[in-house]
Amino acid sequence: MTEMLPNFIKNRASLTPDREAIVYNDDRLTFKELYEKAYYHAGILTAFGVKDTDYVGFLVKSDLETVLHLNAMQIIGAKAVLLNNRLTAKEMAYQLKDANVTFLITEECFRERAIQLEEGLEISVFYKERIKESTYIDPQEKDHITLDETCTIMYTSGTTGLPKGVIQSYGNHWWSAVGNTLNAGLYEKDTWLCAVPLFHISGYSILMKSIIYGIKIVLHDSFDEKRVLLDLWKEKVTIMSVVTTMLQRIEQAASEKFPAYFRYMLLGGGPATVELLTRCINKGILVYYSYGMTETSSQIVTLSPEDSIRKIGSAGKPLFPAQLRIVNQAGEVLGPNEVGEITVFGPNVSKGYLNKENHLIDGWFFTGDIGYIDSEGFLYVLDRRSDLIISGGENVYPAEVEAVLTEMEGIREAAVIGIPDDQWGQVPIAFVVVDEILRSEKWIMENCEKSLAKYKIPKRVLFLSEVPRNASGKIVRRELRKWVEEQKDFN
Amino acid sequence: MTEMLPNFIKNRASLTPDREAIVYNDDRLTFKELYEKAYYHAGILTAFGVKDTDYVGFLVKSDLETVLHLNAMQIIGAKAVLLNNRLTAKEMAYQLKDANVTFLITEECFRERAIQLEEGLEISVFYKERIKESTYIDPQEKDHITLDETCTIMYTSGTTGLPKGVIQSYGNHWWSAVGNTLNAGLYEKDTWLCAVPLFHISGYSILMKSIIYGIKIVLHDSFDEKRVLLDLWKEKVTIMSVVTTMLQRIEQAASEKFPAYFRYMLLGGGPATVELLTRCINKGILVYYSYGMTETSSQIVTLSPEDSIRKIGSAGKPLFPAQLRIVNQAGEVLGPNEVGEITVFGPNVSKGYLNKENHLIDGWFFTGDIGYIDSEGFLYVLDRRSDLIISGGENVYPAEVEAVLTEMEGIREAAVIGIPDDQWGQVPIAFVVVDEILRSEKWIMENCEKSLAKYKIPKRVLFLSEVPRNASGKIVRRELRKWVEEQKDFN
Repeated sequence: MTEMLPNFIKNRASLTPDREAIVYNDDRLTFKELYEKAYYHAGILTAFGVKDTDYVGFLVKSDLETVLHLNAMQIIGAKAVLLNNRLTAKEMAYQLKDANVTFLITEECFRERAIQLEEGLEISVFYKERIKESTYIDPQEKDHITLDETCTIMYTSGTTGLPKGVIQSYGNHWWSAVGNTLNAGLYEKDTWLCAVPLFHISGYSILMKSIIYGIKIVLHDSFDEKRVLLDLWKEKVTIMSVVTTMLQRIEQAASEKFPAYFRYMLLGGGPATVELLTRCINKGILVYYSYGMTETSSQIVTLSPEDSIRKIGSAGKPLFPAQLRIVNQAGEVLGPNEVGEITVFGPNVSKGYLNKENHLIDGWFFTGDIGYIDSEGFLYVLDRRSDLIISGGENVYPAEVEAVLTEMEGIREAAVIGIPDDQWGQVPIAFVVVDEILRSEKWIMENCEKSLAKYKIPKRVLFLSEVPRNASGKIVRRELRKWVEEQKDFN
Repeated sequence: MTEMLPNFIKNRASLTPDREAIVYNDDRLTFKELYEKAYYHAGILTAFGVKDTDYVGFLVKSDLETVLHLNAMQIIGAKAVLLNNRLTAKEMAYQLKDANVTFLITEECFRERAIQLEEGLEISVFYKERIKESTYIDPQEKDHITLDETCTIMYTSGTTGLPKGVIQSYGNHWWSAVGNTLNAGLYEKDTWLCAVPLFHISGYSILMKSIIYGIKIVLHDSFDEKRVLLDLWKEKVTIMSVVTTMLQRIEQAASEKFPAYFRYMLLGGGPATVELLTRCINKGILVYYSYGMTETSSQIVTLSPEDSIRKIGSAGKPLFPAQLRIVNQAGEVLGPNEVGEITVFGPNVSKGYLNKENHLIDGWFFTGDIGYIDSEGFLYVLDRRSDLIISGGENVYPAEVEAVLTEMEGIREAAVIGIPDDQWGQVPIAFVVVDEILRSEKWIMENCEKSLAKYKIPKRVLFLSEVPRNASGKIVRRELRKWVEEQKDFN
């Protein structure tokens, strides 16, 4: 039976009304205040026409107003479709259409793209800045939710290059939060610093944890290591979610040892070197390296406190409610130290994509990532989705970029790979085969801007006579990577 | 959808094999050792004939061997029927028969009653002491459990006087553990002292928490305040479950302030005076007063850390996943400060009794207890099941004792009430109406010993010409209590 629970935010406000819930710049709200404000927002959105059955797009910054609107969604029971605000209007339009979105919540700084979306789709656009001049109707509050109800939709691309809407249920978020606590504990004074985007699962999951745990969030609308370090001391932060680039910058900027109350960095979104992790330990920064993705509602495998030093470099073991297996191409489960595809199972794993057939096999999610489990049960991730590029914590899917390139006039073939980058971990570069009409590197890069978010645009475009392919016609990216490695002065 | 989780004990041993799991006298086991020993026990019980579909009775002490056998049940997937070891053979026989128990696990000190049970029922009896000389067959281990599977059965009596077997699923235990963590936190060094019986939900739930949280238990086979205080310092205990009598004795015996690492006493099983709670605070003993029962798989309403002093005397608010309402006799939900029956809802609430029809109303459990919720949402329990007597943390149901009394030759009517007692909180006393044949108080009390556990036997038997009843024939216990209060020298 699917369990029915009290509405999360309403319940939290009722249980611990006077605890601090969120700090954003100079604003501080208790859970009671957070709930009351979110309830008011729910009323504004109700007057705007939003109902519980609606899918509501979010093209927003990660600020307090956004938090209130996201909580308003939970109060009404409407589903939030969270757009990566770095995407182009074209990329966004695909997602909004796929999710059958009828309302878009946005703000002035995104007006240009919002207008494009409004013109191309049948959506009503609400600007966050209009909240004060809007009419209000008492919202139809949901007193309860069942754990299989949809809470959020986040898009992710696969090897096909077409973004898919990951359905995240209340239960997915709940079990993720509970799994984290059973691994990392829950302390009365826990305070989570959120400087990752709320439209990513890394950020949204912190919102959910705050409500489920009853702990304070310190919210930053963008990442700035100096601000992080200031608030670390000022707000007595105990936990922070980071990607490798952020961790590097924090470690470099930290002039003194971290305070004893700081518990851990939850590191996700790609590999970190043992050197970086060691430097962190020397500065009193305990790092829980973790493995997860949008489809697992954040981490699903995480290093435990007691193993965080001894097993440095490993992503750890599954969270208590979850399971992990390595399988070969025939789908057979492999033994210790055998390399294969990482598959996961558990109540935090999304049950499906919007408008797609069930992709789970007996409940198991095949991640496409490559790794092995050592003899003690620790996961080592070797390669993310074989060809996935992670740039500053954002996923770049080569197939998606390749599709944009080959749509351009005069480009016959394209292959995209990631190359190492000091600042972003990785950046994408492209190899193209052109027709007789000669295209310049600059022309191609400028053309990409119409269709691709900035972080997805190849930093270099190289011209080839032929893209290396295997017998079944699949691009052999390995060869391109090898070629790049051999060029001494590539950058 | 009911979630499938990895087998709890196996999973815990795999995740944190080297953490300490349990301390019992001079024995100390890690989770890996606990699991391996329990696995061995599962093999012994398999050879003895126990299968996953079996209901296995437990007539045991609360020692390490019992913990291993209980974990063995979870490894096989067999269901444990936990007998209160203070019951008479007659009382136990009723429960074993009702649960269709085919195997009984017991030990030498209970041999007399075990033989009686073996003679009267078709059960195979296994003595814990025989573990070393028994044959072993590799057990059929359950790799997974679904949360709606039955884990344990515990009997409780209601107003009818007939014990009912409460079905506790893995999910009930899981949600109870998770609910507690979301209220009280989970610290890396948490250590739970268990000096309450494992056959009660108060004790068994500590076993479950230890496995789900990955924390150490310090197990005592009986309650001794001096031993508690010794281990509190020696094992750095942070949490302990107590009933009022235990708390009183610990508070009196504590010659110094509790150490700072001690987090809280989880107080259940009946009311505590504000005086006692205040004395505890003065000795550095933070008490989380809680409300719960076998049917809610331990606490369902608990005072939060921040309210434990300000709202002293209240049982607190529901655990995060649970809900609470006060209703009147017509079943209507009452407002703040209105007194009525306490009803609860949540995933930790048992879905039913063995061999009984569903007793929940739209998922709500009507506790029979009386109380109110104040304007801030805090529960105050006024009366447990109107006539329930709680003696040293054990429930005594007047109807059950009355049934035994009226079965005796020469006793026409009987009424049982609880009276205050310095040592036990309450003790039962009986009022009887006898036939011409004169029966002595002593004869009646001796006769009770055949059918009733010692704590249920009336401490006084008083003779009446008539039992006060209301129009519908129900005993008006209030009048008897009033009469007792008026007797200045009653004791």
